[in-house]
Amino acid sequence: MTKKNVITLKEIAKELGVSISTVSRALNDHPDISVETKEKVASLAKNLNYIPNLFAKGFRAHKTNIIGVIVPDIGHYFTSTVLKGIMREAEIHGYKVIVSESINNEKRQAEMLQTMIQFGVDGILLSLSRTTISVDSVLKTLENVPLLLFDKVSLKVPCTQVIIDDEEAAFSAVEHLIQTGKKRIAIIKETEDSYNSKMRYLGYLRALRTYNIEIDESIILSSENISMQNGKRLTNQLLSMKVKPDAIFAITDSAAIGAIKSLKRSKIKIPQQIAVVGFSNSNSSIVIEPKLTTIDQPGNKIGVVAAQYLIKEMNATTQLEPKTIVIKTNLIVRDSSFNPN
Amino acid sequence: MTKKNVITLKEIAKELGVSISTVSRALNDHPDISVETKEKVASLAKNLNYIPNLFAKGFRAHKTNIIGVIVPDIGHYFTSTVLKGIMREAEIHGYKVIVSESINNEKRQAEMLQTMIQFGVDGILLSLSRTTISVDSVLKTLENVPLLLFDKVSLKVPCTQVIIDDEEAAFSAVEHLIQTGKKRIAIIKETEDSYNSKMRYLGYLRALRTYNIEIDESIILSSENISMQNGKRLTNQLLSMKVKPDAIFAITDSAAIGAIKSLKRSKIKIPQQIAVVGFSNSNSSIVIEPKLTTIDQPGNKIGVVAAQYLIKEMNATTQLEPKTIVIKTNLIVRDSSFNPN
Repeated sequence: MTKKNVITLKEIAKELGVSISTVSRALNDHPDISVETKEKVASLAKNLNYIPNLFAKGFRAHKTNIIGVIVPDIGHYFTSTVLKGIMREAEIHGYKVIVSESINNEKRQAEMLQTMIQFGVDGILLSLSRTTISVDSVLKTLENVPLLLFDKVSLKVPCTQVIIDDEEAAFSAVEHLIQTGKKRIAIIKETEDSYNSKMRYLGYLRALRTYNIEIDESIILSSENISMQNGKRLTNQLLSMKVKPDAIFAITDSAAIGAIKSLKRSKIKIPQQIAVVGFSNSNSSIVIEPKLTTIDQPGNKIGVVAAQYLIKEMNATTQLEPKTIVIKTNLIVRDSSFNPN
Repeated sequence: MTKKNVITLKEIAKELGVSISTVSRALNDHPDISVETKEKVASLAKNLNYIPNLFAKGFRAHKTNIIGVIVPDIGHYFTSTVLKGIMREAEIHGYKVIVSESINNEKRQAEMLQTMIQFGVDGILLSLSRTTISVDSVLKTLENVPLLLFDKVSLKVPCTQVIIDDEEAAFSAVEHLIQTGKKRIAIIKETEDSYNSKMRYLGYLRALRTYNIEIDESIILSSENISMQNGKRLTNQLLSMKVKPDAIFAITDSAAIGAIKSLKRSKIKIPQQIAVVGFSNSNSSIVIEPKLTTIDQPGNKIGVVAAQYLIKEMNATTQLEPKTIVIKTNLIVRDSSFNPN
């Protein structure tokens, strides 16, 4: 399956000093790319005897009807809902699905991409590992087989990407708190600043700015692992402050549940004294009392849409234009932030 | 990979009118099998030119270092903990893992076994789909590649099986309730009587009999789907009875959490008036208040042990004797059944 004599998009990009995405879009006659660039790319591609994916794909004699999926962590609740969606949609179209895990490790991710190609899967759905710094192995895979990114994505890969808008989702959560009268809203986020954490934090900041609420660094708390335990610990820290917050936005349900437990132990009235909002609508969000206001991430829908687009690309007679598809989230208001009684 | 001219264990068993397991054990010189039977099997195997797995395996030229896993439902919390264990152990030994789902469907399970064989996996870990009636496709797979069953198993397949003892686990849960002074213990179980539900019910019955507690049909309740919602509903039903139970054993944490919610709504003191015990030690079991007493199913350990044994079989120079390995569960006592205050 190695194609040593076949020129890649990457090589064309390097030669011309432009991005791979530019080369891809130039070859696909994208309106954003200038006529000049298009001509340069087309000319070099012809000279180097570049075979576009479309034809490369045609060479693949053996159709296996199998879709390969690689996720960072197979045990994650949200991931399992995405996998459900992928499997159901694949089933409808007569495809089987095999799943593998990168253990959030870039090297393992590259190995699994290689394995999937060796297996002859017809297409790959990939959610990037947290440690992905170089996307080289992903770009190489994209030369061999239709590939689509979902959830944890990178703009460096010129392919269709299915995501939720974390920033907008966080904005709506914090806006809801402001609209219920809260003025001093703490956030519990991640120290490491993964893509998701960063976007949620930006949404938090935008909401405060939009409503002219001063940003107070002392109530912006971080933890390496956003667990229930750390949610408790950081909330205890907030409760020890002279001027306490009147709301807590935690970027995971686990941390939000920890916050509620800490508040209850200190006999704080939720939501009257301090309201709490989480993120992800996990099973536990309706187990805790008061029930948790949270962001529903429609994992199932992400899976369905990702599988749909991949299958479309796998069966297309011409190469399709890469798209970014944003799946809408919903704020689910429950007793932890709004109690009409 | 089809071996039309190769005789199988199944054919020998059919010819002699004995079980496949008997043939397998006879060929492996198992002490339970009579000398007479061993001679009959050995003689027929020789006449029919039977090639044991061991040699068949030797013919497999291409080692892929991949283990295939098939589970009924990839989104199940317990399953994800087993997968974690499998992946970690495989990683240590230099194997990659691909996972697929049977969607609890026998036909899909057979297809996925076929797919795994086509892929050339070095070994397969299988948890049977709920609807498995015929194990023919599993037996056929076992002729081609080392295979091991875990969690949802069948005695009809002569291979190593890794299980937890559901009956014993349920016994210990109910025994604990009896030892804390409870005398009228209700059970919430499954209508359909899956293997797990049946075993847990048998453990419940054995505990009552062991302690001379009369079995009362009116507090043995079933539901098709053992959800939180149905746990609530069935508990409301128990609360409407003239003589209420003093404890509830639910065969899932979800149903147990539903029970706690219903009891709290009716201002019943937990555990003083009615104690509650669940099964599986899910994340939610420490979210609910009071925290739930439950059975910890060591999914991770099941995965580790299953992967260990499979790898051992894959690398054995002689065929190993099939074993049944029982992984111990632990009763985790929390506030829902025992409150020292």
